[in-house]
Amino acid sequence: MSLLTSDIPRKRRFRAGMVGGGRGAFFAGIHRAALRLANRFDLVAGAFSSDPQTCLEAGEALGISAQRNYLNFRDMASAEAARDDPIDVAIVVTPNHLHFEPCKLFLEAGIPVICDKPLVNSSDEARELQRLAEANDTFFAVTYTYTGYPMVRDARARIRAGEIGQIRFMYVEYLLEWLAGDSSKLGKGAVWRGDPSKAGPTGALGDVGTHAFNILEFLSGQRCTALSATLMQTVASFGLDDTDVVQMEFDGGANGLLWAALAAPGHRNGLRFKIVGTKATIEWQQEAPETLHVSRLGEADLIYRRGQRDLTAEAAISVSLPAGNPEAYLEALAVLYCDYATALEGGRNWREALSVPLADLNEGLRGVLLSEVSVRSSSLRSWVPFPVS
Amino acid sequence: MSLLTSDIPRKRRFRAGMVGGGRGAFFAGIHRAALRLANRFDLVAGAFSSDPQTCLEAGEALGISAQRNYLNFRDMASAEAARDDPIDVAIVVTPNHLHFEPCKLFLEAGIPVICDKPLVNSSDEARELQRLAEANDTFFAVTYTYTGYPMVRDARARIRAGEIGQIRFMYVEYLLEWLAGDSSKLGKGAVWRGDPSKAGPTGALGDVGTHAFNILEFLSGQRCTALSATLMQTVASFGLDDTDVVQMEFDGGANGLLWAALAAPGHRNGLRFKIVGTKATIEWQQEAPETLHVSRLGEADLIYRRGQRDLTAEAAISVSLPAGNPEAYLEALAVLYCDYATALEGGRNWREALSVPLADLNEGLRGVLLSEVSVRSSSLRSWVPFPVS
Amino acid sequence: MSLLTSDIPRKRRFRAGMVGGGRGAFFAGIHRAALRLANRFDLVAGAFSSDPQTCLEAGEALGISAQRNYLNFRDMASAEAARDDPIDVAIVVTPNHLHFEPCKLFLEAGIPVICDKPLVNSSDEARELQRLAEANDTFFAVTYTYTGYPMVRDARARIRAGEIGQIRFMYVEYLLEWLAGDSSKLGKGAVWRGDPSKAGPTGALGDVGTHAFNILEFLSGQRCTALSATLMQTVASFGLDDTDVVQMEFDGGANGLLWAALAAPGHRNGLRFKIVGTKATIEWQQEAPETLHVSRLGEADLIYRRGQRDLTAEAAISVSLPAGNPEAYLEALAVLYCDYATALEGGRNWREALSVPLADLNEGLRGVLLSEVSVRSSSLRSWVPFPVS
Amino acid sequence: MSLLTSDIPRKRRFRAGMVGGGRGAFFAGIHRAALRLANRFDLVAGAFSSDPQTCLEAGEALGISAQRNYLNFRDMASAEAARDDPIDVAIVVTPNHLHFEPCKLFLEAGIPVICDKPLVNSSDEARELQRLAEANDTFFAVTYTYTGYPMVRDARARIRAGEIGQIRFMYVEYLLEWLAGDSSKLGKGAVWRGDPSKAGPTGALGDVGTHAFNILEFLSGQRCTALSATLMQTVASFGLDDTDVVQMEFDGGANGLLWAALAAPGHRNGLRFKIVGTKATIEWQQEAPETLHVSRLGEADLIYRRGQRDLTAEAAISVSLPAGNPEAYLEALAVLYCDYATALEGGRNWREALSVPLADLNEGLRGVLLSEVSVRSSSLRSWVPFPVS
Repeated sequence: MSLLTSDIPRKRRFRAGMVGGGRGAFFAGIHRAALRLANRFDLVAGAFSSDPQTCLEAGEALGISAQRNYLNFRDMASAEAARDDPIDVAIVVTPNHLHFEPCKLFLEAGIPVICDKPLVNSSDEARELQRLAEANDTFFAVTYTYTGYPMVRDARARIRAGEIGQIRFMYVEYLLEWLAGDSSKLGKGAVWRGDPSKAGPTGALGDVGTHAFNILEFLSGQRCTALSATLMQTVASFGLDDTDVVQMEFDGGANGLLWAALAAPGHRNGLRFKIVGTKATIEWQQEAPETLHVSRLGEADLIYRRGQRDLTAEAAISVSLPAGNPEAYLEALAVLYCDYATALEGGRNWREALSVPLADLNEGLRGVLLSEVSVRSSSLRSWVPFPVS
Repeated sequence: MSLLTSDIPRKRRFRAGMVGGGRGAFFAGIHRAALRLANRFDLVAGAFSSDPQTCLEAGEALGISAQRNYLNFRDMASAEAARDDPIDVAIVVTPNHLHFEPCKLFLEAGIPVICDKPLVNSSDEARELQRLAEANDTFFAVTYTYTGYPMVRDARARIRAGEIGQIRFMYVEYLLEWLAGDSSKLGKGAVWRGDPSKAGPTGALGDVGTHAFNILEFLSGQRCTALSATLMQTVASFGLDDTDVVQMEFDGGANGLLWAALAAPGHRNGLRFKIVGTKATIEWQQEAPETLHVSRLGEADLIYRRGQRDLTAEAAISVSLPAGNPEAYLEALAVLYCDYATALEGGRNWREALSVPLADLNEGLRGVLLSEVSVRSSSLRSWVPFPVS
Repeated sequence: MSLLTSDIPRKRRFRAGMVGGGRGAFFAGIHRAALRLANRFDLVAGAFSSDPQTCLEAGEALGISAQRNYLNFRDMASAEAARDDPIDVAIVVTPNHLHFEPCKLFLEAGIPVICDKPLVNSSDEARELQRLAEANDTFFAVTYTYTGYPMVRDARARIRAGEIGQIRFMYVEYLLEWLAGDSSKLGKGAVWRGDPSKAGPTGALGDVGTHAFNILEFLSGQRCTALSATLMQTVASFGLDDTDVVQMEFDGGANGLLWAALAAPGHRNGLRFKIVGTKATIEWQQEAPETLHVSRLGEADLIYRRGQRDLTAEAAISVSLPAGNPEAYLEALAVLYCDYATALEGGRNWREALSVPLADLNEGLRGVLLSEVSVRSSSLRSWVPFPVS
Repeated sequence: MSLLTSDIPRKRRFRAGMVGGGRGAFFAGIHRAALRLANRFDLVAGAFSSDPQTCLEAGEALGISAQRNYLNFRDMASAEAARDDPIDVAIVVTPNHLHFEPCKLFLEAGIPVICDKPLVNSSDEARELQRLAEANDTFFAVTYTYTGYPMVRDARARIRAGEIGQIRFMYVEYLLEWLAGDSSKLGKGAVWRGDPSKAGPTGALGDVGTHAFNILEFLSGQRCTALSATLMQTVASFGLDDTDVVQMEFDGGANGLLWAALAAPGHRNGLRFKIVGTKATIEWQQEAPETLHVSRLGEADLIYRRGQRDLTAEAAISVSLPAGNPEAYLEALAVLYCDYATALEGGRNWREALSVPLADLNEGLRGVLLSEVSVRSSSLRSWVPFPVS
């Protein structure tokens, strides 16, 4: 689904509402930019802040009509549900601890939801959302952004096609530096991310480890069955783990290793993976997302590149620009929004609409379980089974 | 001007019309995606094709009202000029030989213009547009996309600040592979690009050499005063030069070298430069646009990165995402559209609105002169002065 | 100690003897090439094989006089000890299980020893060698080759000087592919490496993990105090672990992670480390050994390069060629041999002769302990203390 | 010819003498290190300096017997020619203007010669050496070091095998920084390199441009037939050109471009080439010599690596260490010395002994012609034919 071919001919458009995202809400601005790029959604409603003034300003700036510029998501859910032209989907971009309630209300109102990760802060909450969504086959997506990169999809397709043989070992690291700086200068986002009552049971693991874990399961099609985690806190002023190591066993026989950190200087958004197979190894890194590196036993390495003719079909359909005109982060998120539009076209059969798996409530639940199980493993200093979900 | 901060608070928006860009017009789709990202323009009018059916379909798909969905740019120019709410700017994305006439008509109607490069196919035409624009101080921009990349702006600012010392030598290469393939399978774009009556006097030089030349002048602030060009045709089926070498002398004392090619396998959009100064060398490549490489005499190399705190001010204002969440081609073009919006806010004083120089008709003219002078130099096999413009 | 400045003026030379290293003994050839490069040793004696014919051929080819071309290392130790001009040092390059006995005999004869890693196959043996060596202050070196690379030494010096702040976390990976191929085609070296009676208690850990472990202690100056290891066997035909993960705690407060594998396609000799400090992160990889990457919080990355003027003193003295004329593996090993010569010049005070720590019997013992402790940890699936040595 | 397999079984050894190379002669030390690595030559004679004391010291340090430690090369040539066991080859490593006379004397004495590049300072001298050598089929090699790199040989073999199709364009750059520093601190080597009476007619072109030119002819098997050169002097204190651009036409239909500079900060020994064919482009750079990058039309790039099983035969025979244990500059020069030994084994038929072309007097002459013809072209500012040689 190219971002460029979506304007002529005109594709079906969807009405979107946003929860969170007033002035200063950084990631909400990213979501709106991706929405504009994807060009399949019109933002027509919102509850942009818990602060009324921020709400009003945001809605006005974003061209939301006054009557759909809600002061809170509860009003929004009930009012939208009552309209003839309700929003087709609610986009939840609040801090972690404010995911559960709006998601629940929209699901109860039968309105599809797109929610930031980590889904919620406990597996009980996640399972409750699952029950609500399954009751009506309501569309629900969790924005694991990195699965929108064409070359991540290309990696997945190549692995499934056997290009690297059988998977032996999976390594993923996700390192950030933002927590390494002067702690007195950290912004609001840093503060709630270190507060267990808001961020959930883990710090680095919930913030970025979930992405890393999700990408291993996405790539391999294997599910984690047990893990051994070491959660470490190296930054005293932060209330949660900032450096984590998780070893994993997967149902397909692979073993895995995950390293996540929030205070690693020189790492801006350092997600990278290396999947070792019996025939080849496949590597990708988020900061150079246009290429996929396949290194083979005794032979020349291959550098696959987004937009070239030897891409797998799963990757090719997610490409917009030709190779050489680089795509990047916003385009990856826009690819997800294109997927969401395609899925929403399917109505109750939204699960059948896509050839690439969409991160749904089950993936969201697994991300929450990663935190819960890792906390237990780390305190026991031993391996713990990972629940079937 | 961040693409993300432009939605809250709401910035002034401009009405845009597009000439060219019906179904299949690839670069027009790119311009529209960048327009959506920039979020400062509403596309309200257009003459999208010389084919009426294509026109109608495109306008409808793009949500243009029927009365502003014109069948040709002549009607568009006169009708828009007569409206109370005319377009604030016309965006011309037709093939090269169809730039001059619409640009002229819009300028005559007092309507600002944004035009793809190369500006036109002769310096006489370019100078005529200059006269028209100067008469009314009408805004006119030529889309040298690569000057929108923050790290190109960072390079320029560092060079101006003396970080590399005095410039000794400037090297730029711009290599593409599209003409290297099976010539029977080339698309429409390839065909007109090899036809002198449409593409203008040169092939590789007009198509990509102009970008490369522009970027050297943009970076250095120096103007070419003489050149020695060798235009080569290595692809028999193409009607123009496909491989060019141009040596240049600049008014600031630097010498330069440009290599452009359209049939270089393995080069997707291979623009890269290396500016050698007395203290350091600065390098950048379009396919890895997030970093700037500064290598110093006897000391550690520096890798500057978009979004970090040690960026120059000129670069920093063009940044949207934090370092690590990569930006790329569409974002660079959107930066230009943000600049255009800022300039248009300035009305007749648009030239004073920006801290980074905007590619105007003079830059467009110089691109056309590059082709004309190089043809002469290549046929004489000698150096030829470059006109002052 | 430059390899190039050692010939004029002439430095003191040492008589060396070699145990192992007949035809087909690959690493012995590497040692001899490094000896020639270092230009401080004359190979005058040897017991090159357990096979008499191979012994004779090798000694003759290597220009060893017939009387010092011994048929076994026992004869060699006693005969050399009895000479007026005995060898100054014995170089032991036999398979792992044949390290202990020759080392013991030479130490008993008061002859210094240079031995390949892993030192021996049990900590009891290692401690017995320690006792023998300490009795006479006899020089004993274990060839941890990678500590000979100038940029590894540069990393160590920068870490000690506080350039990256306090160490938060240390990651090292060492991946090879040789075991991933057709197992029926594996050579002699592969066979004994998978045989516990010869290779010792571990496979990947003993073969390459010891290098990785040693380099972390070398870089940080911190000592491992506890570890949690997972030893995995993914290649059925190999009799030992081929894929290992070890988590570590260090006495200086750092945590560490080590991943070693012998069957990772596309990894030829993939040793790389990443040391995360509070101020910066430092990275190096063996296959691109000429540069050291220091990435800092929010600022430009630094790429240090061997041979430039901003190198640390510890690194600079180990450099031979100017930056740009690359050095590599043989030069790194030759740097170690230059160190050995310098140390041997010191006689009983050999420990004081060098500014960079030399891997001695204690480092050798720690490598053996790594295997022993990891086997225990892996079978218990829990953390185990690492003995003080 | 592996550097490692040359010791068992023992290969035939040759007696070498050296002209130049006393204390402080940097490149002579490099040659001696490469000689030790190659392990086929014994240095038994020398005239190491024009200064008697330096001569004596050097010879003594290098273990030369007093009677073969000559005070000048004239004595050396006559005395060696008169011996029963004369040197098999003379290695000339003096400054450029002192190449001709010793080469001439050794050739007249029937003694093979290995000479540094550039061969001599005029084509008349080069042709005189040619006549002398041809008279007796005497072996004569010019040390174009970079042709000893296995991956340069791999590139040549792949080009010959048609892997990149027909050559369209060849680009080579060779940039150094040494002249960019404080001119008052430049060493002896810098001073004579800027003195036309010693360095020859050009600066950057003679010093490094000859290497770059040679490598294009080596890779392509095509011969330059015409060139257009621009020789520039940007460093006032240097007496010759320091920045050069040369455009070339070749007899096989390819065009070429060469950029050489001595004052480009951040470039230590920056030789790199890019050969554009109709099917693929092949790239290599001296500072990362272990890989060859082949980028293909629309398909994954290939990264070939020294030591892997898919190497061409020409490259494979020049490999010593396995992939992953990197080789570098000294190994490349040692590969040339291995070639010289193989060639010398052939006696008068030395030209038939090698599968990779050896740079002989004709290549040396062409390097000298490059300077002479470029000076003419640059002063005429036009194209000039390149003589057939």
